[in-house]
Amino acid sequence: MAQKKMVNDITSMDVDFAQWYTDIVKKAQLAEYSSVKGCTVIEPYGYAIWENIQKDMDRRFKEVGVENVYMPLLIPESLLQKEKDHIDGFAPECAVVTQGGGEKLAEKLYIRPTSEVLFCEHYQKVIHSYRDLPKLYNQWCSVVRWEKTTRPFLRGMEFLWQEGHTMHETAEEAKEFTLKALKIYEDVYRETLAIPPVVGQKTEKEKFAGAEATYTLEPMMHNGVALQGGTTHYFGDGFAKAFGIQFTGRDNSLQTPHQTSWGMSTRLIGAVIMVHGDDNGLVLPPKVAPVQVVIVPIAQHKPGVLEKAGELYEQLKKDFRVKLDDSDNSPGWKFAQYEMQGVPLRLEIGPKDIENGQCVLVRRDNGEKISASLEGLTEAIDGLLKTIHDDMYARAQKNREEKTFVAHNHEEFLDIAQNKPGFIKAMWCGDSACEDKLKEETGGVKSRCIPFEEEHISDVCACCGKPAKHMVYWGRQY
Amino acid sequence: MAQKKMVNDITSMDVDFAQWYTDIVKKAQLAEYSSVKGCTVIEPYGYAIWENIQKDMDRRFKEVGVENVYMPLLIPESLLQKEKDHIDGFAPECAVVTQGGGEKLAEKLYIRPTSEVLFCEHYQKVIHSYRDLPKLYNQWCSVVRWEKTTRPFLRGMEFLWQEGHTMHETAEEAKEFTLKALKIYEDVYRETLAIPPVVGQKTEKEKFAGAEATYTLEPMMHNGVALQGGTTHYFGDGFAKAFGIQFTGRDNSLQTPHQTSWGMSTRLIGAVIMVHGDDNGLVLPPKVAPVQVVIVPIAQHKPGVLEKAGELYEQLKKDFRVKLDDSDNSPGWKFAQYEMQGVPLRLEIGPKDIENGQCVLVRRDNGEKISASLEGLTEAIDGLLKTIHDDMYARAQKNREEKTFVAHNHEEFLDIAQNKPGFIKAMWCGDSACEDKLKEETGGVKSRCIPFEEEHISDVCACCGKPAKHMVYWGRQY
Repeated sequence: MAQKKMVNDITSMDVDFAQWYTDIVKKAQLAEYSSVKGCTVIEPYGYAIWENIQKDMDRRFKEVGVENVYMPLLIPESLLQKEKDHIDGFAPECAVVTQGGGEKLAEKLYIRPTSEVLFCEHYQKVIHSYRDLPKLYNQWCSVVRWEKTTRPFLRGMEFLWQEGHTMHETAEEAKEFTLKALKIYEDVYRETLAIPPVVGQKTEKEKFAGAEATYTLEPMMHNGVALQGGTTHYFGDGFAKAFGIQFTGRDNSLQTPHQTSWGMSTRLIGAVIMVHGDDNGLVLPPKVAPVQVVIVPIAQHKPGVLEKAGELYEQLKKDFRVKLDDSDNSPGWKFAQYEMQGVPLRLEIGPKDIENGQCVLVRRDNGEKISASLEGLTEAIDGLLKTIHDDMYARAQKNREEKTFVAHNHEEFLDIAQNKPGFIKAMWCGDSACEDKLKEETGGVKSRCIPFEEEHISDVCACCGKPAKHMVYWGRQY
Repeated sequence: MAQKKMVNDITSMDVDFAQWYTDIVKKAQLAEYSSVKGCTVIEPYGYAIWENIQKDMDRRFKEVGVENVYMPLLIPESLLQKEKDHIDGFAPECAVVTQGGGEKLAEKLYIRPTSEVLFCEHYQKVIHSYRDLPKLYNQWCSVVRWEKTTRPFLRGMEFLWQEGHTMHETAEEAKEFTLKALKIYEDVYRETLAIPPVVGQKTEKEKFAGAEATYTLEPMMHNGVALQGGTTHYFGDGFAKAFGIQFTGRDNSLQTPHQTSWGMSTRLIGAVIMVHGDDNGLVLPPKVAPVQVVIVPIAQHKPGVLEKAGELYEQLKKDFRVKLDDSDNSPGWKFAQYEMQGVPLRLEIGPKDIENGQCVLVRRDNGEKISASLEGLTEAIDGLLKTIHDDMYARAQKNREEKTFVAHNHEEFLDIAQNKPGFIKAMWCGDSACEDKLKEETGGVKSRCIPFEEEHISDVCACCGKPAKHMVYWGRQY
């Protein structure tokens, strides 16, 4: 981590974290602002990261029997109104179509902010018997939620995501699937993105519009701020009843199914940037890096160098995502460029290396240089990429632990909120008035979640002093 | 092809082709109508076909250096107005957002009907030097075009597609890429979908709004009707000029790049249904079939049958997309079900087969039954799937040839248009007035394209009798 800063036009994260983020997004060519207010263009390098995340998640979904579908982009107002909590939650932040084909529409169409009602309408048509259950559908699409401020990948009017919507025979099965989806998300974070999120249940106040229970993954960014980075919801049978979805049960009685939904979005790219990045730019987890190994020939005009580099490229591309940069740019320029783009491993090969039957491997995450024999190179790189993943995870875990503080009472809570960026663990009485008060007093610290394994910190709420019901993670968020 | 009809609730294609199509879409669970006027839900089986098509196309794009991006869904009116022909062509069929975040918008936002202007706006920001060229971007998304009638996969208010947009240093290179994209599409048709399309250039009248030249692929459906099934466009520098896109050339002069765009959509699924399907349902090309081999155990209660079926499943799933149906439904029911769903190969395995160390393979495309030894089964299936692909292609080619007619003059043209469903090859003077007249007289026969290899049919236009400039394919379309 203690590398000297080579790319001078990235603001240091310690000087201005927000500007550091914007610089990386722009310089690494991940995304670009567009003239459409609140919308960004996801550029090839950023989109390639998303494709790798998608592929990984999609495989995990399919392994548990989830099937992909596509629902319409537009929701008629009458359909959105079928579930009251839902429209109250979403209608104010929707984009609304009032004209089509040159004419004013008789009924307004809302661009989907999420698709619960569309899935329910469809399920109403196709679910008749317990034999039709469970239905485990997912779609990859974009959604629109009106936002005035835009930060690429973090907050914007439109974002890409997946939304899973499932229907189950019993409440138990639906609850179980809500947690199964949460576990898949957690695995994606840990195994694919090398990020250890705090995982738990949202409070009543923070849960999803229309849900009975919302679970969440809350990774901590390098600066101690949380990102709500994925949620799964148990809906009970509220939507199903509102949409008249019924099935003939095993006992021949007419029953109502139980529902879940769950989503993760391009925000994950924001999390990757802010958890792993450093002052030289992006640091990408090997599993999602568009280029895992970049080959930089040294003294490439010397005989044999480009040939050997080309050979290695052909060999390595069978197992890794590899790029060979044989452009005229200087090695120094290339080093800085691929560091900025977060390529996990740089492979340097020059005349001396070739003579010695070896090459130099340089890790992006910690700058370590390793001499590697050209024999067994594939295995060495494979091992190194795994080590890089593990080390990145351990560093993120360490950062989270170092920036998580315990508040035993109100005074400590306010002191930490004021002076120590990070998460706060503190007891809570269960009253949303205390959440409001703490948010107000601290200028934005909110309950993140009630973790599955609560610690006992004190007997009383860190806000009102009444008997505590839960330990809660608190923190500021993006 | 001459199988007896087992699924009684599919209308025969000879009785009512449109109803046959609708029945297949519904019974094979490809898509379902939604309450959103003009929009359908793509169900898991239909979406799985699309995913296979996507994967195949995406690989081909990436092989020629195309990179995926994501552009905003919404286009401000002022941006859409920058290229006049374009807005004239598209504005009347757009869905328009006039409210957002609970307020009336100062500027209308159009849901993208296609994204030329968004790509141009972005290219204006990122193209500065000839070193930045070519830019070969593509996006997978949905677009909205206001349509009153809906036919799943063929015509609807919203459809899924890919749109490629490229910028090049010279007109020659851009023209070349327009044809390269066309060739990729043609390969997808022939190699992946087993469909032989007619390929050529659109007339002035039929070309894309704002394009200098439009090329097209026109597969013929089983009933002789054409489907405009993919287009590529050469734009010259018209859009680039309108958007002020300039770059410093190799000679240091300021130049304007040249542009292409190209798109194919979920219509391809419609083409697959209507080119290959029969009265028993879908017939899927092996390359895109969600299930390539379905294993149906015979007398599955007998000892050893389910075990052997399970063994075969584990073996075959390494190389193919396989499904084992060990449900309680009767073999007859299963046969009809998977025929209707167009699964290319059925594998039957019963007690006698096991005794003899063999199984029975049944081809969906022609009903042929083959006894296959369990030894070398993987190779046998691999070979059979290739043969099925080739035979499906040959049948589609034969159908196209049998339903393509030559009109030497006006009288013949009208007679064929009236009496023989299919394509008409006829000469044309180059005047769009003749296209209008023929369309009017025939109630809908339009020029499909000027093929790359024109035949000489006559010296004069089949409409006005003036000297002919081109041979044109004509036909009705979906």
